[in-house]
Amino acid sequence: MAEDRAGWSVPAHADRAREFAALHRPGAPLLLPNAWDVASAAALVAAGFPAIGTTSLGVAAAAGQPDGVGVTRAATVELAVRLRTVRCLLSVDIEGGFAPDPDGVAAVAAQLAELGVVGVNIEDGRADGTLAPVAHQQAVITAVKRAAPALFVNARTDTYWLTPAGWPTPQAAAGAAAETLDRLRAYRAAGADGVFVPGLADPATIARLVSGVDAPLNVLYLPGRHTPAELAGLGVARVSCGSLLFRAALAATVRTATAVRDGNPVPADLPSYAEVAALIDGLARAGG
Amino acid sequence: MAEDRAGWSVPAHADRAREFAALHRPGAPLLLPNAWDVASAAALVAAGFPAIGTTSLGVAAAAGQPDGVGVTRAATVELAVRLRTVRCLLSVDIEGGFAPDPDGVAAVAAQLAELGVVGVNIEDGRADGTLAPVAHQQAVITAVKRAAPALFVNARTDTYWLTPAGWPTPQAAAGAAAETLDRLRAYRAAGADGVFVPGLADPATIARLVSGVDAPLNVLYLPGRHTPAELAGLGVARVSCGSLLFRAALAATVRTATAVRDGNPVPADLPSYAEVAALIDGLARAGG
Repeated sequence: MAEDRAGWSVPAHADRAREFAALHRPGAPLLLPNAWDVASAAALVAAGFPAIGTTSLGVAAAAGQPDGVGVTRAATVELAVRLRTVRCLLSVDIEGGFAPDPDGVAAVAAQLAELGVVGVNIEDGRADGTLAPVAHQQAVITAVKRAAPALFVNARTDTYWLTPAGWPTPQAAAGAAAETLDRLRAYRAAGADGVFVPGLADPATIARLVSGVDAPLNVLYLPGRHTPAELAGLGVARVSCGSLLFRAALAATVRTATAVRDGNPVPADLPSYAEVAALIDGLARAGG
Repeated sequence: MAEDRAGWSVPAHADRAREFAALHRPGAPLLLPNAWDVASAAALVAAGFPAIGTTSLGVAAAAGQPDGVGVTRAATVELAVRLRTVRCLLSVDIEGGFAPDPDGVAAVAAQLAELGVVGVNIEDGRADGTLAPVAHQQAVITAVKRAAPALFVNARTDTYWLTPAGWPTPQAAAGAAAETLDRLRAYRAAGADGVFVPGLADPATIARLVSGVDAPLNVLYLPGRHTPAELAGLGVARVSCGSLLFRAALAATVRTATAVRDGNPVPADLPSYAEVAALIDGLARAGG
């Protein structure tokens, strides 16, 4: 046990990473809410979520940068630095890894592990809408695990995800299940601790991936398409919110501003100025 | 007319500052929504708000720093740099000015004006809950106007605002109106373009300040206490949202995460991933 800046005992990084891994239970999934700044992370932890992911869309948009094209490494690392004050198990979305080569991605992952991050998401979707070759993605995963063995590597395949052309097309959907199974098995063989298929909704396909891959399956929560309980019943081990919370925050921002402008009521159940200030001041006292 | 990076004609800074000043119309107030990152600002501009303020609580909390104690200069300037891509009239909350002396505050203001910022808020409340001496605050305002003459300086007095002891006490409230009037007149005499009294709700006091100070009066919107229309009727020239939108966003974040966890419906009228991505990509194309 090490000590944080306030002198409290805190588990070592490897213990915390194991704790995070243990939350991935098929049939009783970890619900991972995704934050994009310190305030959103701190509020989610205060609401009882022990583990927090980051949303690359949120991190990118907050900084005014495009998502998914590998330009937000600095913003992502900066956020991880700032989130050291938030007591939670933190998994960071590093898009494709912010580097063209496996060693470059491994360096990013090692830097994050040094900052106390317990997990990363690494995706195979590329900015041009294509998928990285399987062998390349395996090399990336292996390099990351070699550089940061304790880090929970969640290998994401974008076979079902959006592309500029608008995934999934009917043709793509037909072949996607087989392609997805092949990729997830390959990523697991390369060392991935978990596998992630955002955009997936079909229960039969989810069940097939759960039984066909020897790794916890992570699915993106799609509002109106399924509930966490239904996903649990299919054997899913982790449910992510992706950009949902960020988009809900953005919508609330605009909705509240237009309500003020139009003389309509605004939500009454908001945290007060003092409550938000106390949330952040509490971080500084605890460890920052 | 200068040109932005995309080669479009953009008004010079002084013209844009004049445009911002002209929006302060007693009886037909400017409603200023307050943003804390690029995404919130871009979404508000897209919703039709021509001018945007920043919320120091939001900027501070997003970065994991306390508000109102002068530690967020770097985060505030960084946000102004990033907001250059958002086409709006931007006014920045610089708390007490991020420097103990007038010249230091003037340097901050000049830096922001160089970045295209058209206005600043400067407050007289200090971290210990006291108010800066009037003469000091006048010196600050005069120095800022000398360093950045075009900048719209909104001089805020915290006579009615929260302090650690919990403003306003009954005694404080009794004397606050007279103290406020004296301070606003002094700040105006020192060169302030507008005056701001957050926490003020009493219609008679608002009317008294409108008639007693020769400068546009800015009031903080207090949900349930008044509407912008009522404030317009009192002669107010600007209505700010302060931290309201940020707190609404934070509440929506937590509410949405707990709804997912509990299997309850989440809001259906959210912007899609593609819409948020397009909002940010549009900034890059327009000027960033």
